Amino acid sequence: MAEPAGCGPLIPPLSETSRPLRQQIFERVRAAGQIPRVQVAKDLGVSPASVTTITSDLIERGLIREIAREGEGGRGRPAVALGVRPEAHLVAGMKLSDREHTVVVVDFAGNLVAGDLIPRRPGLLDLAEILAAAGELLDRVCAKAGIARQDLSAVGLGVPGFVDSAAGEVLWSPVMRDRNVALAACATQALGLPVHVDNDANLVTLAELWFGAGRGLSDFAVVTIEHGLGMGLVINHRIFRGGQGLGMELGHTKVQLDGALCRCGQRGCLEAYVADYALVREATTALNWAHKSGQPESVLLESLYDHAKAGNQAARSIFRRAGRYLAVGLANVVNLFDPKLIFLSGERLRYDYLYAADTLAEMEALILTSGRPPPPIRIHAWGDLLWAHGAAALALSAVSEGLLAPVREVAAQ
Amino acid sequence: MAEPAGCGPLIPPLSETSRPLRQQIFERVRAAGQIPRVQVAKDLGVSPASVTTITSDLIERGLIREIAREGEGGRGRPAVALGVRPEAHLVAGMKLSDREHTVVVVDFAGNLVAGDLIPRRPGLLDLAEILAAAGELLDRVCAKAGIARQDLSAVGLGVPGFVDSAAGEVLWSPVMRDRNVALAACATQALGLPVHVDNDANLVTLAELWFGAGRGLSDFAVVTIEHGLGMGLVINHRIFRGGQGLGMELGHTKVQLDGALCRCGQRGCLEAYVADYALVREATTALNWAHKSGQPESVLLESLYDHAKAGNQAARSIFRRAGRYLAVGLANVVNLFDPKLIFLSGERLRYDYLYAADTLAEMEALILTSGRPPPPIRIHAWGDLLWAHGAAALALSAVSEGLLAPVREVAAQ
Repeated sequence: MAEPAGCGPLIPPLSETSRPLRQQIFERVRAAGQIPRVQVAKDLGVSPASVTTITSDLIERGLIREIAREGEGGRGRPAVALGVRPEAHLVAGMKLSDREHTVVVVDFAGNLVAGDLIPRRPGLLDLAEILAAAGELLDRVCAKAGIARQDLSAVGLGVPGFVDSAAGEVLWSPVMRDRNVALAACATQALGLPVHVDNDANLVTLAELWFGAGRGLSDFAVVTIEHGLGMGLVINHRIFRGGQGLGMELGHTKVQLDGALCRCGQRGCLEAYVADYALVREATTALNWAHKSGQPESVLLESLYDHAKAGNQAARSIFRRAGRYLAVGLANVVNLFDPKLIFLSGERLRYDYLYAADTLAEMEALILTSGRPPPPIRIHAWGDLLWAHGAAALALSAVSEGLLAPVREVAAQ
Repeated sequence: MAEPAGCGPLIPPLSETSRPLRQQIFERVRAAGQIPRVQVAKDLGVSPASVTTITSDLIERGLIREIAREGEGGRGRPAVALGVRPEAHLVAGMKLSDREHTVVVVDFAGNLVAGDLIPRRPGLLDLAEILAAAGELLDRVCAKAGIARQDLSAVGLGVPGFVDSAAGEVLWSPVMRDRNVALAACATQALGLPVHVDNDANLVTLAELWFGAGRGLSDFAVVTIEHGLGMGLVINHRIFRGGQGLGMELGHTKVQLDGALCRCGQRGCLEAYVADYALVREATTALNWAHKSGQPESVLLESLYDHAKAGNQAARSIFRRAGRYLAVGLANVVNLFDPKLIFLSGERLRYDYLYAADTLAEMEALILTSGRPPPPIRIHAWGDLLWAHGAAALALSAVSEGLLAPVREVAAQ
């Protein structure tokens, strides 16, 4: 990129940061793992005295702690770093899905205390079944962790579908029989603990923000590919769900007028070209798979992948087109959100068409030329407990935001 | 929409608001025009005592003032409202474009003090010409307003194209010869005043936020249609330009793989189906317009519109397709950003195909069904000085953010 034709001092950028300093300091410590006070001050551009005062308060409230770093202090003074106090809170995270339910308990620093996975038969669940499953998951993981329910500060509960997290409402989910269910309130009552709900893609985004490679990043996007295609966005260290809480439905942005039919009933949605069911649908047409009807999607996909590797042109063309549409979707994310980094996440990412060099090259060709390099794309194929970890991150977010909320009085200014 | 199946108390939503209270109070007063203290306290959910303390400080610093509201107090006490103090600051806003340059001076409350418009011959400008034009605009509008340059607190400068507002850099503009120009710094030096730069769509968005129908709204989107197609986004009362400042390029999101050629050189961009040049290109093909080459785009568009009204099927088909693609673009904005409201802005909006009932119906059919009504679309065909007003809003934002910036010390917490 050419240097700008400079001829004078630059106006400082308008400040984008206006969260309370207490919250910024806590988040910096959380993201860093271990960090000296002086580094926090440097990173946030505030005085060491401010950091000392606020961190003393956070220590007194039991949220963070001092950690001696041996052999680093010099001249007899031990160097001291700050870290989140793991035992400050325990939370549970659980994810309900079509194939299995998963659950974890993590401490305040995000360390896994216990986890469990219960396979299930696919099928729609009504509210009573959902609450029963959540109760069973909670009992099992608490037994494994050797704790009582009441030792938990909060529960995060994830379901696929269309979720209004702020309202605690599931508008529609492929695993639930009913629409417009006040799941957070119902589960709070049923479990006797504060429950927060969100959808898949936001859970993965929170998992990256709290435990993953997004810890130190202020702005990034997450694109998930699996049964559907989802997206999460972090702005200024916080998840953004759209102006009214129901945005980021990248999978249902239209990339073709009157295009392929989507499971949402509309045409031309990005996920109708990229998601599992889209690939299986094409394979059924082109590979003479009528006899395979009824087999699980994952088996069919694996077979399609084998055909492509063996040189079958139709199979290759199916992956190739999915890769090109994925490039369109990623380029649209860059053109609109201009993130510093994009995480590509999901089980299916072992199908390498999704991050093949030509897919990424095609994405770059569809991004506006600003003179800057395109944002890096990082592939994250997490393990089974990813979603439950994300749900735990949702619970941790809620707990820490409650503890760090600004006192809205003059003294708080 | 069906009522949620409620069965317990709702968890309060995670707080999305963390700007300093001082800034929130100032913005509330600015947005309201005139507002009693008690209403500010009610709107923001804070104690009247906090509002009184902070507004006293803002009055002392000359930013807001008390306004007596006669006949409203009752029992001998005159009712008092708060309003921004118009004379606190004067700023200028100017917009450079291919057809004309415009400039305004407004006071701190956004009232127009003076404005001017200089037509120009189209053609690329180099940096020296840009700075000379800005100087001339400033002198003319200051003379009209009866003020000296030094009476201005800041200048907002808008150009079409690809602008990094935070860095003050114009990466590319259709009116500028050079790429990667540090325009804010250069103009600051040339004009002797702090200059802030931004692109068209963000200026319109700021104009709506400061002076328009967006004043009271926390979250909305603006889509502009003219020579190109632009977008601006307001989140929590602030403009959002993307994670790295160069996002919101809705016009260059891809809505068709290998689709129509865009002036950016890529294929399938939304604006290649909707913007002026896209319509004129199709008209030239279908209406036998070879003889019209060289005529201004605006004249050609007007002629195309006349043909459509007169029943020409090709002309109608051109508008119809543009309307359908506009519906795709608006639906994608809703699916991703879930704004409370969308403003459609630009001169071309008098061509009613753009907001015809069937375009809006098509948009609704492409939005994910959440059970909620789609966001209202408001048409704003502003006058000539819109862009300059937006540039003035940019300057006002910079001035007020500088004045209201939180003191990043412990006392400020």
